[in-house]
Amino acid sequence: MKLNNTKWFTEIGEKTGIAFSLAIEKKLHEETTPYQHIDIYQTKTFGRLMVIDGYIMLSDRDNFLYHEMMSHIPLFTHPNPKRILIIGGGDCGTLREVLKHPQIESAVQVEIDERVTRLAEEYFPSLCDNNHDPRAYFYFEDGIRFVAQAPNNSMDIIIIDSTDPIGPAEGLFQAPFYTHCRRLLSTEGILVQQSESPLIHQPLIKSIHEEMKKAGFLETRTLTYPQCVYPSGWWSLTLAGKDLSQFRKVDAQSKTFSTHYYNADIHQAALALPEFLRCLHPE
Amino acid sequence: MKLNNTKWFTEIGEKTGIAFSLAIEKKLHEETTPYQHIDIYQTKTFGRLMVIDGYIMLSDRDNFLYHEMMSHIPLFTHPNPKRILIIGGGDCGTLREVLKHPQIESAVQVEIDERVTRLAEEYFPSLCDNNHDPRAYFYFEDGIRFVAQAPNNSMDIIIIDSTDPIGPAEGLFQAPFYTHCRRLLSTEGILVQQSESPLIHQPLIKSIHEEMKKAGFLETRTLTYPQCVYPSGWWSLTLAGKDLSQFRKVDAQSKTFSTHYYNADIHQAALALPEFLRCLHPE
Repeated sequence: MKLNNTKWFTEIGEKTGIAFSLAIEKKLHEETTPYQHIDIYQTKTFGRLMVIDGYIMLSDRDNFLYHEMMSHIPLFTHPNPKRILIIGGGDCGTLREVLKHPQIESAVQVEIDERVTRLAEEYFPSLCDNNHDPRAYFYFEDGIRFVAQAPNNSMDIIIIDSTDPIGPAEGLFQAPFYTHCRRLLSTEGILVQQSESPLIHQPLIKSIHEEMKKAGFLETRTLTYPQCVYPSGWWSLTLAGKDLSQFRKVDAQSKTFSTHYYNADIHQAALALPEFLRCLHPE
Repeated sequence: MKLNNTKWFTEIGEKTGIAFSLAIEKKLHEETTPYQHIDIYQTKTFGRLMVIDGYIMLSDRDNFLYHEMMSHIPLFTHPNPKRILIIGGGDCGTLREVLKHPQIESAVQVEIDERVTRLAEEYFPSLCDNNHDPRAYFYFEDGIRFVAQAPNNSMDIIIIDSTDPIGPAEGLFQAPFYTHCRRLLSTEGILVQQSESPLIHQPLIKSIHEEMKKAGFLETRTLTYPQCVYPSGWWSLTLAGKDLSQFRKVDAQSKTFSTHYYNADIHQAALALPEFLRCLHPE
């Protein structure tokens, strides 16, 4: 597409009525894998950009928001996380953040499409900084099958770092999958699911809460944060667990690693629910 | 522009490398005033849309975020606000929110372009719900001149609800104007300025703090909130005053009017600064 002689990549949301474009210098790569079509662009102002089936996955410039929130929120909520499972997350950015926590013993990443990870290594090398950490384990297979076969009580945190709930990722937003997640988790275990836009996907967020409750999780909680390249620029994650009121605040305040967005104040702030979302947590 | 047979309005940011589009049903109105060109569209999913000189001003669907934050944040920060001045704000949405506070004695709106207000009355009538409140006063003139001529100590809060700092609004982001604002404000007075995107306008936000300090304000503080239709989907406001650590929390918790985004939790949450913005408030 051309707007004013600049070349743009545009993500078109026919249903949302929103389209979002980034100015492009050139396309660096494209391929069709057994699962999806992947494009990688060099943008003018957002660094590199990965697009899957026409939907923006991440940019160099703003992926820190998503990756830091998806990892540090559950990790500083859980009292003593040691064993982390990431479903999806093929770009390795969530894995990188998880492994910044020194007490982690293992971080298992289960991505269905190995090509996402290989392309991240080539085009987003900084996201893969911790791929050679001996605590990192990679499986390239279906997350739903992996979870169905994994032993009870084998994980402290499960991070569902998935694409949108259409096509292959649909099952990742439903009670049968969440029930297996609960079985895998230890008593204090926490599940976190990327849960789309608070502004435009409220019915989905409500359904995620319901499905998590059906799966037996006692508490569920939605947190929000900005995410420029996703529809509406405002995104959310939803936690499920036994007791989500915990927060290792002192540990977050004295964390030994650097972040670009996350800090203890941001953690608490992200928990504040706008008036129009109070329905998620009837008091 | 056409993308996939849908008609879209697109705001093109050549400098930011971002373009944002909304699907359009039809154009409802356009005119060139002595100050600017105004378009009004019916969108498919965001209600009505006002565009000035090609830049999105507001949509029915998400203007509540901006208007609630620009008004309730300073009004619940000030210990006893009675006299409010709004510079710009021609769509009357900020005025509507301000007048929800029962203790307000007068709210003066100084908009340079009367046509913005007349079009808001016609196309965004709900924003103008409080235009006939006897506490509302309208002046259609240059805000900089108005402030230069206004008497000392005549206002408790000044809300600068302006367009971007290019063209006519540029002077609204500079120390000479802020100095007049300070002169107008009572001792406990608070100035609030819309201060663009935390992600893409950091140098401007830093400069606003510096200009406010030059004008003699002792404290300055930036707060952030989502705003789908503005570049990056993440926006900010910057407060200036003598003591910004105040917050009438109990009053905010027991407010007598409804809001869609703002509440006491959101107020405190909006004050949390991401790591990359900590430079604004060196400790």
